Formats: sequence, C-alpha cells, structure tokens
Amino acid sequence: MRRWNTVAIIGVGLLGGSIGLALRSRRLADQVVGIGRRASRLRWARLRGAVTSTTTQLAQGVAAADLVVVCTPVEQIVEFVMLASAACSPGTLITDVGSTKEQIVTSLDRRLADGARNRVAFVGSHPMAGSERSGVEHARADLFEGRVVIVTPSYRTRPEACRTIGRFWKSLGAKVLYMTPSSHDRSVGAVSHLPHLVASALATATSPRDLPLAAGGWQDTTRIAAGDAELWRQILLDNRLHVLKSVDKFAKVLSSLREALERNDKARLAQLLAIGKRRRDSVGS
Amino acid sequence: MRRWNTVAIIGVGLLGGSIGLALRSRRLADQVVGIGRRASRLRWARLRGAVTSTTTQLAQGVAAADLVVVCTPVEQIVEFVMLASAACSPGTLITDVGSTKEQIVTSLDRRLADGARNRVAFVGSHPMAGSERSGVEHARADLFEGRVVIVTPSYRTRPEACRTIGRFWKSLGAKVLYMTPSSHDRSVGAVSHLPHLVASALATATSPRDLPLAAGGWQDTTRIAAGDAELWRQILLDNRLHVLKSVDKFAKVLSSLREALERNDKARLAQLLAIGKRRRDSVGS
Repeated sequence: MRRWNTVAIIGVGLLGGSIGLALRSRRLADQVVGIGRRASRLRWARLRGAVTSTTTQLAQGVAAADLVVVCTPVEQIVEFVMLASAACSPGTLITDVGSTKEQIVTSLDRRLADGARNRVAFVGSHPMAGSERSGVEHARADLFEGRVVIVTPSYRTRPEACRTIGRFWKSLGAKVLYMTPSSHDRSVGAVSHLPHLVASALATATSPRDLPLAAGGWQDTTRIAAGDAELWRQILLDNRLHVLKSVDKFAKVLSSLREALERNDKARLAQLLAIGKRRRDSVGS
Repeated sequence: MRRWNTVAIIGVGLLGGSIGLALRSRRLADQVVGIGRRASRLRWARLRGAVTSTTTQLAQGVAAADLVVVCTPVEQIVEFVMLASAACSPGTLITDVGSTKEQIVTSLDRRLADGARNRVAFVGSHPMAGSERSGVEHARADLFEGRVVIVTPSYRTRPEACRTIGRFWKSLGAKVLYMTPSSHDRSVGAVSHLPHLVASALATATSPRDLPLAAGGWQDTTRIAAGDAELWRQILLDNRLHVLKSVDKFAKVLSSLREALERNDKARLAQLLAIGKRRRDSVGS
C-alpha cells in the first residue's frame, strides 16, 4: 500500500470526513489537511479525528499535498480542481467523489491546459457509498469497506495516474471498477439517480394523514428521499439526459403493472411481479 | 392481560409463527395449535417453539380454541374463517392478518349466518409487520413490538369482541389503530401496496448489466420487491381500485419531477425534492 505524505481533502462532509478517518485509522497518510469554507465544520472534522490540520485557504492547504480529493457538491468540483491544480506541487494527483462524471471529466479535459496537465493529473472517481445522511458527524472509517468505487478515466488520463487512484480506493477497502465517464453516468442514472427520483415522488404522493401507517416497506422504499435536496438537484440536472431515459423506462414498466391491475389480469400481474422479484433477489439484501 | 386457554393459528408462516412465538414467550396462552396443510412446515413451527401442537385437520385444531387467528394468503381467509366458525366452540373469537380488509369483512358480514354470528365473532386485523421474507424460519417473538396493527370493525362487529382483539395485539407489543375496512384499504393502498408496485417496477426497470453498481439506495428502494409474488398478486388485486388511484397520484408527482428535469428548471426541481424530503423526514428511519 502506498503511504501518502499529505492528503488534502476539499470539503469535509460525510465522504471527505470518512476518507480522512479511513486514511488515519489505516495509517495511510502522515498528514490529512481538511480544507473548507466554514471554520465550524472544519473544527468538527478535527475533533472527530478525520483530519490532522485544517485551513480555509485552499492554496495553502494543497501546497504540500501529494493527493488532493475534491469532495464538494458536483457543481463546484471543476472549479475546485482548477484552483487546486494551480496551487499544488508538480506530480500531485487530484481526484473527486462526484456522483456524475461526464460533464466534470470532459470539462477538466478541456480546461486543464497542457502545462497544468504535465504538472498534475486529475482522475475522476465516484464512491457509491453515500447515504441520506450528510455531514462529518456521520463520517465513518469503514464507509468504503466492500463498497464499489467507480474510477472514470478518459482518453486523456495517464494510465499510471488511473491505477494509483484505483489503488488509493482499494487501500480504503473499496472494490474498484473502471468505466468511461459516459457509461458511468448511464449506469448510475439507472441504479442511483432514478431510485432517488422515484423515492422522492413516492414520499410526496403519500398523504400526511396516511403516514401513521407507514411501516418498514414505505420507510425502505422512500429512505433516500431524505437526502440533501440541493445536492440531489445538482446531480439529477447534471445527468439529466440519462436520468430522463431511465425515468421513461421505469414509467413504462409501471404502466404495464397498472394495466394488468386495471384489467384484473391475474396471470400477467403475477408474471410481472415475479420478474421484479427475480431481479431483486439477484442482488441480495 | 388476558391469558388464552388455546389459540389456534391457521397457516404458520412468518406472521402465524411470530404470533405463536410471541404468545409463548410472553406466556399468554396455555396451548398454541398450529394448523396447516404441509406437515413439513408444521414440524418446523413445532421445532422453532412457535406452537405446542400441530394438526392438518382444521376442525380438530380449532375445537378447543378460544381464539383462532387465520394467517393464510388473503384469497383463502374467508374460506378458512367459515370453516373455523363451523367447527369451533361457542364464544370463540376469530381474527385474521390479511393485508386487505374490505372484501374480507364485507363477505364475512354477509356469509356468517345469524346462527354462526351468535356463536362466534369475527374481527378483522392487519398487522403492519410483514417483510419481504416469508416462512416460519423468519418468525420472531418480537415481530409486533412497536408495530402498528389495524383492527377493522364493521357496523356488525360486536364492540366487546373488537376491544378484545385490540387488547390481544397490544399484549403482543403492538400499537393498535381502529379503522373501517374501507378507510383501511385506502390508506394501505397508499403506504403499502403502492410502494410494492413501485419497488417491483424499479427492480424490473434496472438492466442486469447495471446491477453490479446497485448500492444501498437501490437496495433500500427495491427491497420489498423480493416479497412473495403470488401473495402480492392477491393483495394488489383484492385492493385494486384503491391501488389504481394511488398509482395515478404517484405517476402525477413523478411526471412533475420529470418535467422540471426536462426543462432544466432548477428552482422547480429543488422545490419538488424538498417537498419529498420533508415528507420523508417527518417519519424517521
């Protein structure tokens, strides 16, 4: 396992805080610098032991880093990677944890000028280890254990930088998959962004008067709707074309179920429910 | 707490088995008779300690009972209540655990002739404590603790029988709500049957090639789709008019979300997601 000298984490919330805790508990970094705008959140991160030092000055925070991880909301990732790339030392690796990849990677491929690209390398990542909870107070050293992290090289990504970022996530306990940014966005549109939209619609469609009866099924099915609305607004819009396709596919399946129900078609309804059950059973709890 | 002499449970699966385990661990019944068609399942129930004796002969099994609980799939409940009412002793109470109530209660109001009604009393119940798992092997003595059980008297139900059945569920640790059969069906159509249909559609809409990326969000949102397809087929058809209304309400909300996404309307999308989050936050995990 590579031991890092200094890892700089920009944005110390659930994911950034968990990266810090995992690096420290596994002794994979000498220094973990937490960079953020709010001093109160940074103090929390330090008290929790997620970082060894903190700063609100990005340039100062990344100066000594050999790895920078950008953990901000998706709309700010490109901006922070650009700021970090201008301030960090030659040879520094930069990655992110954004839930969408195509716009971020394409934009950075274009904007990181050749000079910057020779000094630093950016490789996009997406740890599929979020939660409806946010904030460093929910960070956990084991958040990435057994979870999938997707690393998304583009044709401009240096292969050795890509491998190093893959090994970084493996060193935190994750299973690493490599995908192109666009196939990443298509897939997570289906397995992550669509479920969020569906969960949100289901929560909204439930009358408050019926909520006292909401048992485990309702709670499971709607749980992710409690996620931060502004973060999800950004993710869904960033990936809107893929999400729209997924919504339409879902709506078509739902309407087959509705039709079987309306027609009182026992055999068809049983068949459709059995298909859903088989698909769900193939994943496990 | 009333202590029962003999409780007969018709159908010893997850719910029937859990009733038996709860009665025995709380010492609320001297005898718990498990009645079923399959000797292998009955043996399991006895080995697990959910029942004290078993039989495949319904008439024999209910003869000594002061309480009969019918835990079969919804389509068979009326038939088994009729069989039990003909074979049990005067004064016996009968309840069920069916997920729908209007058809069952109305049909029994009509079919239990006045003679039978003077001898035995039926009161409909619905413990909202199911699971995507079925079978006595998943039964638990604490399944009903803190869970809602809805008791659904009709205008023909004797008030004292209704109160006794309410106290029965409270003695197993449940919170009891009283509703008419039709308002029950409308409410659970929204908070239980609709989520099942949505979870099933979401599971089916996910391509197998994307399943390796299915993380906690997908797993939560689709979990109940793993429920027994035949049992759910019966429940959904039994309550189809209410479920259809709920599906249409859900589809309308989803289509507002889709429209905001398609128009790239940040403010509207953020607003809709915030409504879903507030609704979900009001329930807790």
